[in-house]
Amino acid sequence: MSKRKICVVITARPSYSRIKTALAAIKNHPELELQLVVAASALLDRYGSAVNYIQKDGFEVTAKVFNVLEGENLTAAAKTTGIGILELSTVFDNLSPDIVVTIADRFETMATAISASYMNIPLAHIQGGEVTGNIDEKVRHSITKLADYHFVASEGAHARVLKLGENPSFVFNTGCPSIDLAAEVLKSPKLDFDIYQKYGGVGTAPDLQNGYWVVMQHPVTTEVQSSRKHIEETLFAMKEIQQPVLWFWPNVDAGADGTSTGIRAFREKYDLSNFHFFKNMEPNDFLKLLVNSKGLIGNSSVGIRECAFLGVPVINIGTRQHARDRGNNVIDVDYNREEILLALRKHESHPNPPSSTVYGGGDAGKRIADLLANLELKFHKTITY
Amino acid sequence: MSKRKICVVITARPSYSRIKTALAAIKNHPELELQLVVAASALLDRYGSAVNYIQKDGFEVTAKVFNVLEGENLTAAAKTTGIGILELSTVFDNLSPDIVVTIADRFETMATAISASYMNIPLAHIQGGEVTGNIDEKVRHSITKLADYHFVASEGAHARVLKLGENPSFVFNTGCPSIDLAAEVLKSPKLDFDIYQKYGGVGTAPDLQNGYWVVMQHPVTTEVQSSRKHIEETLFAMKEIQQPVLWFWPNVDAGADGTSTGIRAFREKYDLSNFHFFKNMEPNDFLKLLVNSKGLIGNSSVGIRECAFLGVPVINIGTRQHARDRGNNVIDVDYNREEILLALRKHESHPNPPSSTVYGGGDAGKRIADLLANLELKFHKTITY
Amino acid sequence: MSKRKICVVITARPSYSRIKTALAAIKNHPELELQLVVAASALLDRYGSAVNYIQKDGFEVTAKVFNVLEGENLTAAAKTTGIGILELSTVFDNLSPDIVVTIADRFETMATAISASYMNIPLAHIQGGEVTGNIDEKVRHSITKLADYHFVASEGAHARVLKLGENPSFVFNTGCPSIDLAAEVLKSPKLDFDIYQKYGGVGTAPDLQNGYWVVMQHPVTTEVQSSRKHIEETLFAMKEIQQPVLWFWPNVDAGADGTSTGIRAFREKYDLSNFHFFKNMEPNDFLKLLVNSKGLIGNSSVGIRECAFLGVPVINIGTRQHARDRGNNVIDVDYNREEILLALRKHESHPNPPSSTVYGGGDAGKRIADLLANLELKFHKTITY
Amino acid sequence: MSKRKICVVITARPSYSRIKTALAAIKNHPELELQLVVAASALLDRYGSAVNYIQKDGFEVTAKVFNVLEGENLTAAAKTTGIGILELSTVFDNLSPDIVVTIADRFETMATAISASYMNIPLAHIQGGEVTGNIDEKVRHSITKLADYHFVASEGAHARVLKLGENPSFVFNTGCPSIDLAAEVLKSPKLDFDIYQKYGGVGTAPDLQNGYWVVMQHPVTTEVQSSRKHIEETLFAMKEIQQPVLWFWPNVDAGADGTSTGIRAFREKYDLSNFHFFKNMEPNDFLKLLVNSKGLIGNSSVGIRECAFLGVPVINIGTRQHARDRGNNVIDVDYNREEILLALRKHESHPNPPSSTVYGGGDAGKRIADLLANLELKFHKTITY
Repeated sequence: MSKRKICVVITARPSYSRIKTALAAIKNHPELELQLVVAASALLDRYGSAVNYIQKDGFEVTAKVFNVLEGENLTAAAKTTGIGILELSTVFDNLSPDIVVTIADRFETMATAISASYMNIPLAHIQGGEVTGNIDEKVRHSITKLADYHFVASEGAHARVLKLGENPSFVFNTGCPSIDLAAEVLKSPKLDFDIYQKYGGVGTAPDLQNGYWVVMQHPVTTEVQSSRKHIEETLFAMKEIQQPVLWFWPNVDAGADGTSTGIRAFREKYDLSNFHFFKNMEPNDFLKLLVNSKGLIGNSSVGIRECAFLGVPVINIGTRQHARDRGNNVIDVDYNREEILLALRKHESHPNPPSSTVYGGGDAGKRIADLLANLELKFHKTITY
Repeated sequence: MSKRKICVVITARPSYSRIKTALAAIKNHPELELQLVVAASALLDRYGSAVNYIQKDGFEVTAKVFNVLEGENLTAAAKTTGIGILELSTVFDNLSPDIVVTIADRFETMATAISASYMNIPLAHIQGGEVTGNIDEKVRHSITKLADYHFVASEGAHARVLKLGENPSFVFNTGCPSIDLAAEVLKSPKLDFDIYQKYGGVGTAPDLQNGYWVVMQHPVTTEVQSSRKHIEETLFAMKEIQQPVLWFWPNVDAGADGTSTGIRAFREKYDLSNFHFFKNMEPNDFLKLLVNSKGLIGNSSVGIRECAFLGVPVINIGTRQHARDRGNNVIDVDYNREEILLALRKHESHPNPPSSTVYGGGDAGKRIADLLANLELKFHKTITY
Repeated sequence: MSKRKICVVITARPSYSRIKTALAAIKNHPELELQLVVAASALLDRYGSAVNYIQKDGFEVTAKVFNVLEGENLTAAAKTTGIGILELSTVFDNLSPDIVVTIADRFETMATAISASYMNIPLAHIQGGEVTGNIDEKVRHSITKLADYHFVASEGAHARVLKLGENPSFVFNTGCPSIDLAAEVLKSPKLDFDIYQKYGGVGTAPDLQNGYWVVMQHPVTTEVQSSRKHIEETLFAMKEIQQPVLWFWPNVDAGADGTSTGIRAFREKYDLSNFHFFKNMEPNDFLKLLVNSKGLIGNSSVGIRECAFLGVPVINIGTRQHARDRGNNVIDVDYNREEILLALRKHESHPNPPSSTVYGGGDAGKRIADLLANLELKFHKTITY
Repeated sequence: MSKRKICVVITARPSYSRIKTALAAIKNHPELELQLVVAASALLDRYGSAVNYIQKDGFEVTAKVFNVLEGENLTAAAKTTGIGILELSTVFDNLSPDIVVTIADRFETMATAISASYMNIPLAHIQGGEVTGNIDEKVRHSITKLADYHFVASEGAHARVLKLGENPSFVFNTGCPSIDLAAEVLKSPKLDFDIYQKYGGVGTAPDLQNGYWVVMQHPVTTEVQSSRKHIEETLFAMKEIQQPVLWFWPNVDAGADGTSTGIRAFREKYDLSNFHFFKNMEPNDFLKLLVNSKGLIGNSSVGIRECAFLGVPVINIGTRQHARDRGNNVIDVDYNREEILLALRKHESHPNPPSSTVYGGGDAGKRIADLLANLELKFHKTITY
């Protein structure tokens, strides 16, 4: 019997962490064949070339699709999605997958969802049902309504996908594959490499012996104008704290310009002797870095998910993650240097929080592969009410 | 104060009937400026060139976008949508509308929804919340999750849009603008033109004095293979009935090929002396034709909506309209010549059904324009649960 | 040593005849690997689905690209080319060919030429240097200026490619591969199949025993408006002659609409009891049909090329082939029923013309494959003057 | 009588200088209406936002088209062109110009040429016939074969366009509009503004009183790999000379990455106290800067054209301008720091060269507008031989 062909489309660096253990489980499953498509910012140098990590991890890339339109504005985001549909349709037409898998909620993942669902290819969606409150949320729920199978990451997400009228038989709380990586890291959490030597980056190389903070703050799509002001509040706070700061560059998004320009201008103006800037890091190394840090600052979903499992303190800034389920490791603050500083000090004065399984217990990848192998293939559905 | 710019995108002939009275009301509203974009099959000859009717009705077309990819297969439908996004984004970028309006649930309307929502332009959706059970339904609910305002056409639709987690403050049951046209026609319902002379078409010209049937049957997207078989059942039934049959060509859809080929082949093989085939008809004339007919056969939503208000008997074939709210005028049948014939005879033996306001009372256009003029402009939203 | 990868892009039915023997020679060459991309109208049913013949002939299709935009107008032709570039670039990026081969001069072949030359992939052009005087000629010479290697089909073409400033070391008069097919057919020219049974089509089935004429007339791109008038002159002439007429449907081109509509309307109006209409025919069968016919009428380049070698009388109508090198088998006429009838009678009164090698001697495919295997790979060039 | 509509498409910062005086002359011509389309890198921040200068100069932008695909590789260049065709076709369809004007030879100008010529809109090409020897040259001559009118800039270019088979009646040596700007500047050449204050940039602010050099070096498309090595030779030479260096960032091109990365890395490694880096400058200011400089180093065509008229010494590096007609102001060198230094010293030891009219006498803009107003409109052509 021929293997079921599972086509996974990865369009951005963060999505790779959210699917990596599932990719491995699909690849190793006797009844599945993995078709891996890498597209959009996952191919681009200035967003960390996820494709290089993917290949280094031993996955063969079946097709590459360059579809990011320049402009770093909202028009470009829409057009990137349009080009994605145009080209992914051809890719699917030539690969004839049995199931297509799309990940999370970035604007361009909609391209995968539309191509597959319009072509009557059963569509599985990883990480539906979460709540964030901006364009990401529109995209996520919109994909849910196109998808046939839902592999959600928390109880809250499960409830919301049902609320959206999906058939309970096709909604599965598998937990998030990113937690699988975190579980793996916890088995051997030592920071056993020289981050400066391995990852370069710019800025001074502060000594990490006495603790350090990690920052990762992305622009918020629908607030383009204020991206720069937002990032400056964080920059001021981290300058003030005078402890080592390892800062990660934001991933591509409409509005990246405000954030990037803000950081660049700040660097020219101020002496940031306690800062080091990285473009990106292998997921495993990044998790080790977090485990050994004093905490993560910014608005990355890693703070909400992986850090919950890892028990790492998090200062979550602004609205980007506002309604995601969370463990006890998170302090939420506004775009405000004072609030950030206050939270930094509060975390410093408490022991680290315990591990939480709110986003899964470390076996999501395997569960997803098993479901993909055994699901009844279908693509007709109607609202359940 | 400058007028609020309302950009309406029309992509297909049937959508024009669903928006026409709203277009007129927007155009005539002192606080609104109409930007009219005509795209996709609404520009194409072989789908009835809706653009010609639009211009003849006195609406100025602001921009045209040709984006239908050939193939009449599902891949082409996806790619048509991708090209639509690519180009509509440029159009919106150049027109800077305050609100974009997208209509109904055809696959390519998703392009309008994505371009507008990704560009942070408030998006109004006409006719969300309906239930049909195939790709149209996926598309419709997916657009609901991208849209900021919802102008629904029935109580059932209203309830379902709320069920999908939309904020009740932004969901309005305006009724359907197509009912406005029907209401207009009922004021002067006489068939006061020679349909053969005015609309040409092919086939014999059966005498309509003693009654006639109207057929409009579209292919069902996700059942490409069987389109031909489906249409043949209807063809056989209508051949059998030996009464005048006025048959309307299907609109563009993946699968049109099976339907069209089926009709063409049938014509070559059988003597269809009671049939006349039309490509299309001005909406007003079409409604008059229905009012004076013995009934409508097929799977057009006109049978469910306008015919409810007009009190015209309908034989609704197959699954395309399966879960739409309906009046008492509809008999549902399978793709089966015997069932169709049975229903024809049943309708003939009963008086016409009374008018129903299930899809609105005839003032939808005006209500939509008033809402567009007065709504608070926004584009942030989150799931309500 | 790894084989040299030769990527051939076929975008239309007629192009397949122009490359078929070269495809076979590439496929069988020990140092070459064939990558076959089928795109545009070569994939579409209503232009004869060349892809089916290609696969039936034993060639494996490496990738398919649907890129024909509907509209059958000039805007659609341009946009089809744009989509072609977008998608072929991805295909080339994923296939990494050593040489790309583009064929002839249809508008969409420019997409192949641009993608390859912009990506620094050496580009070989089949059939440059010919003269036709409309958009095809602009396209053809424009491709010549992008191409690195030129495989031309006649002495006249050779001289013109040099005239355009190309380096003589990279211009080769190989003859046309279509002549190879003709040479093959001449070895066994009997019409050994029932054309009506094998190819269906519509119209009566005139008896071919006492001779018949073949018609193939394409719209001329830059004269959209008059396409219908043009085709009617031919229709009237062929109706008048009252001999069996086998008529082939035109291939896709901006303006096809005028020609197709013209034919359809004529059929409805007149009794064409001596006509049979075909959509298409396998190249070999078509050549046999020509060899046994009284002659070919229309503006197909087959009349100029293959018919020269086959010694088949041709009536060439209008400007489409106006400056192509030709043998003694051609009478040129205007779009005028009288001139066409006069030429028909003139041909009938003379013996068939002798075979001419003006477009090659029957070994073009093999010569092209050998050149592709041995050419020095390069893509820098400058005008030679 | 309605005015003739002239649609000019500007896709990059350098093209604006090459057309600016013609734009003004078209705008002011009583029989012409200017339709100005700004696209591609001319809209992007990181390539100098030419659109801002265009609007500041008082030209109204009729439509904007974002079409630059990210990647800064050759695939992206091809795809950018494809998207350009797709969208410009819609723009032309909606604007209905009488003539379209395309400028020079950058890869994406081909999009303008294809859209216009395929849509039967007469196409005028500015600056055909020049010789540069890489992809630019392929593009330029390829556009010549699509264009109907040729406004060339030198006698050599005129001869080569004729050589390519164009009809002499439609080839006009108008000179280059960029020379018009240079002529204007020569009337008042004083450097009357503070360049650091007006244009910001990064690096030290060397004193310009005792002379300075200007550097502008673009990557060479078909030599992606070595871009970085090339730029380093220039960087070393200019570091060595220890005189003020004003360095301009390269414009977008496949390969920009190598050049940009090279510059950035060099800055991090070496103390460049005599360097200042600019993103861009208004054309007029740039010409003033050149007139007052000791010379221009790099491979910009400004060195070949404007500097000839201005009598500014130039060191032209590498192959990018290798066969362009030139005045006596140019020393050609290889990518080699020693050769560059030798040339710098040779220029320093000689008086400045005299003004040359090899690229026109300063009235090109007016001549082009007059031709556009009076040319017979046509779009049929054939090779002249």
